[in-house]
Amino acid sequence: MNARRAMKNSKSKKLSINEARLWDSLMEMAKVGATEKGGNCRLALSTEDKNGRDLFVKWSTEAGCDISIDEVGNIFALRKGKQKNGPIIMTGSHLDTQPTGGRFDGVLGVLAGLEVIKTLNENNISTDLPLEIVCWTNEEGSRFSPAMMGSGTFVNKFNLKEVLAKKDITGLTFGDELRRIGYAGCRPLNEKKIQAYFELHIEQGPLLEERNKTIGVVTGAQGQRWHEITIIGRESHAGPTPMHLRQDALVEASKIIQEVNRIGNKYQPGACATVGLIEISPNSRNVIPGQAFITTDLRHPDDKILLQMDQDMKNFCQQLQNENNIKIEIEDLWFSPPIQFHKNCITLVESGAKFHDYPFCNMVSGAGHDAVYLARIAPTGMIFIPCENGISHNEIENASSADCAAGTNVLLHSILNT
Amino acid sequence: MNARRAMKNSKSKKLSINEARLWDSLMEMAKVGATEKGGNCRLALSTEDKNGRDLFVKWSTEAGCDISIDEVGNIFALRKGKQKNGPIIMTGSHLDTQPTGGRFDGVLGVLAGLEVIKTLNENNISTDLPLEIVCWTNEEGSRFSPAMMGSGTFVNKFNLKEVLAKKDITGLTFGDELRRIGYAGCRPLNEKKIQAYFELHIEQGPLLEERNKTIGVVTGAQGQRWHEITIIGRESHAGPTPMHLRQDALVEASKIIQEVNRIGNKYQPGACATVGLIEISPNSRNVIPGQAFITTDLRHPDDKILLQMDQDMKNFCQQLQNENNIKIEIEDLWFSPPIQFHKNCITLVESGAKFHDYPFCNMVSGAGHDAVYLARIAPTGMIFIPCENGISHNEIENASSADCAAGTNVLLHSILNT
Repeated sequence: MNARRAMKNSKSKKLSINEARLWDSLMEMAKVGATEKGGNCRLALSTEDKNGRDLFVKWSTEAGCDISIDEVGNIFALRKGKQKNGPIIMTGSHLDTQPTGGRFDGVLGVLAGLEVIKTLNENNISTDLPLEIVCWTNEEGSRFSPAMMGSGTFVNKFNLKEVLAKKDITGLTFGDELRRIGYAGCRPLNEKKIQAYFELHIEQGPLLEERNKTIGVVTGAQGQRWHEITIIGRESHAGPTPMHLRQDALVEASKIIQEVNRIGNKYQPGACATVGLIEISPNSRNVIPGQAFITTDLRHPDDKILLQMDQDMKNFCQQLQNENNIKIEIEDLWFSPPIQFHKNCITLVESGAKFHDYPFCNMVSGAGHDAVYLARIAPTGMIFIPCENGISHNEIENASSADCAAGTNVLLHSILNT
Repeated sequence: MNARRAMKNSKSKKLSINEARLWDSLMEMAKVGATEKGGNCRLALSTEDKNGRDLFVKWSTEAGCDISIDEVGNIFALRKGKQKNGPIIMTGSHLDTQPTGGRFDGVLGVLAGLEVIKTLNENNISTDLPLEIVCWTNEEGSRFSPAMMGSGTFVNKFNLKEVLAKKDITGLTFGDELRRIGYAGCRPLNEKKIQAYFELHIEQGPLLEERNKTIGVVTGAQGQRWHEITIIGRESHAGPTPMHLRQDALVEASKIIQEVNRIGNKYQPGACATVGLIEISPNSRNVIPGQAFITTDLRHPDDKILLQMDQDMKNFCQQLQNENNIKIEIEDLWFSPPIQFHKNCITLVESGAKFHDYPFCNMVSGAGHDAVYLARIAPTGMIFIPCENGISHNEIENASSADCAAGTNVLLHSILNT
């Protein structure tokens, strides 16, 4: 990190956010729903989520913002621009967390927006366009599935009525819980024209740390193809069944697992390929597995290559079935196309990193984010900063104060230059 | 099967058992604890097991036998020999079944013994040595673990007190259940000298059918080595974690599964190698598995080769650990050495097959049997007959009347020539 620290010395006269103030706000928010191991539990629409929202609303109001809440509970904090009815510049992320989540995932993007506004306020800077910080409802999807529900509903990917009717495992509905915590608003979904949307987020992966970079200029998000594969062999006794007469479903499944990994390595750079789940039957020490079920998760930022990965996997399974006395069934479960962020937004983020002399690199987001949905309706960009050992969705999730500040400075620069 | 049928025509004058009577007794016993799909459920020491035992005792008594029961519930039906106190010739198997068991596994060996006695009776044949049919308690081990408990206790492999204290999943003890069904006897364990023990059993594998043979001359039982292997990688998000930074426990486990299969194929003839169980963590579609747990079951009739298979597997895991950023822990769980049956008994079974012109082959038992324990204390031999498609431990388990009779004729011949 020495190279990165040395570079920061040259930016003393540049407009910058207040690192200590940002860090204090992050640590203050981390007290809401704090867990024993130093993480956070603010499940969407829980009382802890309400308390976090209340704190954000209080701080935003103190910073002079006007609060509005839409029908799915997304909170908007408006700082007026010179153009009263101009399109808005939007930034934000989410305050809800995983059940054993960390202090930065989502929170950083929301509080960075607030820190940007405080910085503009104390420097008496008026922007031409209005600026809105948004706190999206239920990004994590842990309590109500699927994830990114607030932004997905905002961009009309999900139907509002259906979302409000979603139930958690105890049977409570999204709509009832939204009313209970006092965040069922009346602002119509997506009523304002958005000039640009920026989201600052921890990387949730190890690349920035590995490359010793402070800023990830996110150029887009990987496309994803998910499958379910069932391998049907024949269950038989592990003792009296000789090797040449076996139809071992696990042996064949293990070949597919190897192949999926090979496909991931073949289509570098950018490809990810994972078998994350396996169930076999009867799953007994001395019985040859008669059936195996695995899932595959293929990702690539290029749609054509992603399709090629999909084809490679299916061809391999077809060949395996032809050459062996087994049956393989493949189901296409889910497809999310790759997203390219807007050229102008990418350029703004990159110029922000350059302006502040932060080591940076371009990268593609592997995980889903609210920004991926926003990119459907507005020019969008994302800024990543490193998280310790790439660990996220975990109470030990960590990021440095300096990196949080760096990301927020890039956000400030991007907004001011939109 | 034409070759086999043709050969049988030459044996009309040879002393043979009554095929129809044997089949009738098998089908009559199959009514006790009959299941919907045509199988049997007579779990050890259940009321169904009691009913099966009662029927056997009734039939044996009608055939002139004296019944005795030992302390672990094994039933002995004695047909006296000319030598009143001579060593006994013993044959038998078990009447208990798996929860969804078949009509032949175990039952055939018991009722074949009874059919041999009926044949001797009606032909007024007195044997020099006394003959005992034994029905071993709890061979299957489904209700009370481990398997082969009656024969294991008989040969002093298990401690009687510990066995009687074993509990089923509802908390009922072996001892209490044995008393409840009226089969807690007082004959001391293993009090008589045994001249030879023979056991007729269905093969429970596909080899005889594949080779078109009627009789398997069993020369011994495979040795077994069982292990538990834990592969420790690092759990991380399937999206943002690039391929080259992964420590995917499932990918490494799948290499071990492939290697175990390769080892099984390498040490032919005779080797079996199986991974029957796998559990991974967290077992989620979009998370790279951080940990995998697999079991291995290695079998070979030759102790030295079995040890070599064991070493090959461990060397592979060691190499995998050295070359990859993962940890592999191997635990030796169980070792059962290979058993060689007695030369004289093997010769007697083979001469029985030859005498009756049955197509036969030598083979090694892959599964455990009561005979494997008996071989520790007495000259022992086993006779296998084919079962349909090699399927056993299943309600659809099937064997032909002709094959059951053939096996019983070989048993008769082996006993008469001991």
